[in-house]
Amino acid sequence: MLSLADVKAARERIQAHVHKTPVMRSQILDELTGAELHFKCEHLQKAGAFKSRGAVNALLSLPAEKLRHGVATHSSGNHGAALARAARIKGVPAYIVVPESANAVKKAAILHYGGKIVESESTLTSREKTLSEVVRETGACFIHPYDSETIISGQGTAALELIEQVPGLDALIVPVGGGGLLSGCATAVFPNIKIYGAEPEQADDAFRSFTTGTLVESHEPRTICDGLLTTLGKKNFEIIRAKVTDILLVSESEVVEAMLLLWTRMKQLVEPSSAVTLAAVLREDRLFRGKRIGLILTGGNVDPALMAGQLSNSRQSG
Amino acid sequence: MLSLADVKAARERIQAHVHKTPVMRSQILDELTGAELHFKCEHLQKAGAFKSRGAVNALLSLPAEKLRHGVATHSSGNHGAALARAARIKGVPAYIVVPESANAVKKAAILHYGGKIVESESTLTSREKTLSEVVRETGACFIHPYDSETIISGQGTAALELIEQVPGLDALIVPVGGGGLLSGCATAVFPNIKIYGAEPEQADDAFRSFTTGTLVESHEPRTICDGLLTTLGKKNFEIIRAKVTDILLVSESEVVEAMLLLWTRMKQLVEPSSAVTLAAVLREDRLFRGKRIGLILTGGNVDPALMAGQLSNSRQSG
Repeated sequence: MLSLADVKAARERIQAHVHKTPVMRSQILDELTGAELHFKCEHLQKAGAFKSRGAVNALLSLPAEKLRHGVATHSSGNHGAALARAARIKGVPAYIVVPESANAVKKAAILHYGGKIVESESTLTSREKTLSEVVRETGACFIHPYDSETIISGQGTAALELIEQVPGLDALIVPVGGGGLLSGCATAVFPNIKIYGAEPEQADDAFRSFTTGTLVESHEPRTICDGLLTTLGKKNFEIIRAKVTDILLVSESEVVEAMLLLWTRMKQLVEPSSAVTLAAVLREDRLFRGKRIGLILTGGNVDPALMAGQLSNSRQSG
Repeated sequence: MLSLADVKAARERIQAHVHKTPVMRSQILDELTGAELHFKCEHLQKAGAFKSRGAVNALLSLPAEKLRHGVATHSSGNHGAALARAARIKGVPAYIVVPESANAVKKAAILHYGGKIVESESTLTSREKTLSEVVRETGACFIHPYDSETIISGQGTAALELIEQVPGLDALIVPVGGGGLLSGCATAVFPNIKIYGAEPEQADDAFRSFTTGTLVESHEPRTICDGLLTTLGKKNFEIIRAKVTDILLVSESEVVEAMLLLWTRMKQLVEPSSAVTLAAVLREDRLFRGKRIGLILTGGNVDPALMAGQLSNSRQSG
């Protein structure tokens, strides 16, 4: 299993190519939750998400002969943009299989970094089939978005930085989709700090895998959190079982409420996926009141149409 | 006329009660403008705007007998919230005359800090009449939102901090409404750094006053920038004439474009008024290309309905 040493090595490898992101606080949110909240701002990371950490680590870890024909992946967004950017650093092509339904801002980011978009249907089967074809035709090396050791140790550098920036955390809360970030952060902080995953009730495969001990291999998520639609990976599950304290569920309305707080109170334009952690703190008062908590704001690539809709609704109801 | 020493004294006075706000950069916005942009994040200031600097300085500069019955002002928003917060620090009441049309987020902030809202009609005449009545009835001390030496020197502390955080600025660009921030910042940086005001074309009283040399005493602004509706003050004009290099105008569509860039690229939820400076850099390529520029992001108290509308429009047109 990966160790803290792997995460430290990843940090050495990537630090010239990613930001050391700031940590923000909010007096209003501290008052509202009764906790001391420290937000690690990965929405201010290169390409707008923590995914740059894993992507750069994966690319810089590959031997030259594997990189020769470029890299490929399937991604609804942030991993694709991060991989395109990492490939550009190494001067090789990146082929990104993107479902038609993907958010326009994330597609634009892939193109901005010189990635080549290959469209597929939205089902996992179609995405995997399209990816296989791309890999066969181009000879590109597949970089899995989360079920990969170099991706996991790269994502874990976010937690490594945070615990140095904020000593004495009682707990760290991390969104969980495929589990790359959660397993990486758990590797970085276990056993010194309690680590929780936060997940939408309507995409609860990590919760079910964690509580039953058996990996849920497919599910049908219906959540506003477009970064948390993926199914927990095998390597990720193994680490999460061993090192994570618990997985906390939040409802869609709790996610929206937390996201609007982050927008209007902290003035930070984060994605819905980033809001699950604050939603969990608001819901699990018993666990977090009076504690010093780290939360990772995972990304800031919000679809303007989504934003507009949420804001209109909040106006009507509030 | 106020001097740098006054701004330095203001900083000593207020520093325990306001944030030293961070400075942010954006590689994408640097590439887009061809300049090196340093954004002073006053939207992350206490009460969500630079106005906390002047309000705290004004309150802490008043002799105790003047403070005895509290303070009063008229404000469409940020100055009112900042004054309410400053009054709470001193334990005295704050009466804020607010036009019915004021943005709901700003009204909520006034109440949050314990301010007492007195509604008036939206005309300046009605606001001033209501304020006079409040002052007569309560004995509160009127704190002008911008045409006041302690307000001006307080606002100038934003520039004082910025030039210490970012040495070697070629120019500083500041939004101008009533002129409190611009005159304060000019006092802090003149004559070492060129200082520009940025103003909406549809609220161009500062531009007209500056270019004709005669203070325009009333105007009918029609702009999305709800923080820039006020008319330039007398003390402000005097300083601006003496120390400001130029006032730059921007159109409403340029403001919206710049605001959307700040939202989607920098992930910072700033008010329309904050976007006039980036809009000016984008328009005045000749002045700013290749230069190291400071810009003040003045506030982050955005009306959700306004945001929703702008985002829907951007989606349709983009």
